Amino acid sequence: MKQLAPALLSALILLSSVMPAAGKDLPVPPTVSPALAAMMAKGLPSGWNEAPHTKEAWKDWIDAMTAMQCRNLPALREKLGVTMRSSVMANVPVFLLEPEAPEADRILLHFHGGGYVLGPGEAGTQEAVLMAGLGGFKVISVDYRMAPDFPYPAAIDDAMAVYRELLSSTPAENIGVFGTSTGGAMTLILALRARDEGLPLPAALAAGTPWAEMGKKGDSYFANEGVDNVLVSYDGWLAGAAELYAGEHDMDDPYLSPVNGDVKGFPPTLLTSGTRDLFLSNTVRMHLKLRQAGVPADLIVFEGLSHAQYHMDEDMPETRFHFEELGRFFRRHLGRSSAK
Amino acid sequence: MKQLAPALLSALILLSSVMPAAGKDLPVPPTVSPALAAMMAKGLPSGWNEAPHTKEAWKDWIDAMTAMQCRNLPALREKLGVTMRSSVMANVPVFLLEPEAPEADRILLHFHGGGYVLGPGEAGTQEAVLMAGLGGFKVISVDYRMAPDFPYPAAIDDAMAVYRELLSSTPAENIGVFGTSTGGAMTLILALRARDEGLPLPAALAAGTPWAEMGKKGDSYFANEGVDNVLVSYDGWLAGAAELYAGEHDMDDPYLSPVNGDVKGFPPTLLTSGTRDLFLSNTVRMHLKLRQAGVPADLIVFEGLSHAQYHMDEDMPETRFHFEELGRFFRRHLGRSSAK
Repeated sequence: MKQLAPALLSALILLSSVMPAAGKDLPVPPTVSPALAAMMAKGLPSGWNEAPHTKEAWKDWIDAMTAMQCRNLPALREKLGVTMRSSVMANVPVFLLEPEAPEADRILLHFHGGGYVLGPGEAGTQEAVLMAGLGGFKVISVDYRMAPDFPYPAAIDDAMAVYRELLSSTPAENIGVFGTSTGGAMTLILALRARDEGLPLPAALAAGTPWAEMGKKGDSYFANEGVDNVLVSYDGWLAGAAELYAGEHDMDDPYLSPVNGDVKGFPPTLLTSGTRDLFLSNTVRMHLKLRQAGVPADLIVFEGLSHAQYHMDEDMPETRFHFEELGRFFRRHLGRSSAK
Repeated sequence: MKQLAPALLSALILLSSVMPAAGKDLPVPPTVSPALAAMMAKGLPSGWNEAPHTKEAWKDWIDAMTAMQCRNLPALREKLGVTMRSSVMANVPVFLLEPEAPEADRILLHFHGGGYVLGPGEAGTQEAVLMAGLGGFKVISVDYRMAPDFPYPAAIDDAMAVYRELLSSTPAENIGVFGTSTGGAMTLILALRARDEGLPLPAALAAGTPWAEMGKKGDSYFANEGVDNVLVSYDGWLAGAAELYAGEHDMDDPYLSPVNGDVKGFPPTLLTSGTRDLFLSNTVRMHLKLRQAGVPADLIVFEGLSHAQYHMDEDMPETRFHFEELGRFFRRHLGRSSAK
């Protein structure tokens, strides 16, 4: 027994250091689509647990991810019958995504995800392409500035600039705003800032698994660590990205963590997450906060889904349902005061 | 190293046998109320992992649980200003719970939880007291027959008998139905059976963390094993109770697992769960199924909450919000075609 004690200790130390990293050994449930089951069976993405240590290393990593993200976009647009053109609004580059027969007059503003570091240029347009192609709306996807070169508030300043410019041509009741992860947070922060700056609010918001709490606060940051096979853990590149973007600013500031904002008077909001999502708590806390403020807020949680997996395979039934649901949601809430 | 190997193996075996049982070592997050934080910090309930092996042992365990469940009920009714009287409807014993100034004309039918084995008599009325006291409705709580003496379909037959009898005095548009866990499942099954038997459907349903899939199918049965500190695991008394009630019947039958039912035409339905709930998948799968059938279905997921903890402490802010939300929900949907 004397020999067992230190060995047991080693084993415990080994396990406790490996467990969260290696992922929890969970079966793939029979209660998801075959496409999602395949996604759930995938191993953890390489590099999830290392944040680059220098600005140059960040840029190299971002470049590699960007190349990967861009690879299938032309084929995806072609498949879904979506055209893309580049433009500039209020000095901010944007992409205009348009399906064959878009909703008339109504338009969606899109902010891509990526922790305020990933998804520059075309790389950030995938979700916008899906929304245009599967949801039937014209989409403006904003290529906002990001860290490490441009920390807070560059990204949200760009978002606001584009929104302001859009308001000069389109009434707020015809504008919906959406995005996932960081883009979901920006969707919510845009509404906070619009209210604070005396602008009319968009007619509806769809925040997919929003980064509503920038710091590591919330149950699913811990409970779904190693369960989520996309983000895996807060303590990888995500923590590094948060620091890069926030810089000296307090991460509890509602303009960084919108779950701390005053959401009274927000328009109808749809939130989406998954049972394995590292941001499940971010999503449900934001949802509850909205409902407690009397905002008509809807929540959808997909069985078995990790972070943002609803926009990673355009043929997956969960993806189809998600974007169709977003389409129904925006059709219901946009253009309500315009003549029909 | 030769000595380490078997020791390591022992440690691993020890850990793997202990891990799901002992609960996952998760911190209590700062993102819940102090009352919920205290509930989250509690150890696992004794006996969660042992199903009684004989009918007598089941009855002894049920009796012990019943005594515990009844202990605080008179004080709770007094505190919330709720009166209770016993009655019989269609040969089924019921309890009538009434707050001081209930909604006029409208009434809620309640089915308690407890795996079709727990909560006989007054022991099953706690949630109904909270709904009457905090939600402001008159509630009929049904003391349906249960296993081991009365397996399927006794419980749901009693539920249907009371609903049928209630319809003879109250129009369906003034009736809401609610319940938690097994009671949430019965709420959904009642609607399935009412439709199948040609009865008018209730005006609204609230299914709290429903036992929508009776067998161990669904992601959170595994992912939240040892995370949920109320049910802890399917493989304890719950699996035993499922077998007791289902008997020879196929657990996939929609009258046992309503997630397999055809829910087209269901009335507005509100579903509630928590991020740590063993029945999170049951809840979100049912919610998605309803939405895919075009039913106006709402979902609320509480941060950090294990199974059904929203009805265990009447002063907890999450509890207050839950029953107030249920009150708002039923006020919105009941009595819509009656004169105001």
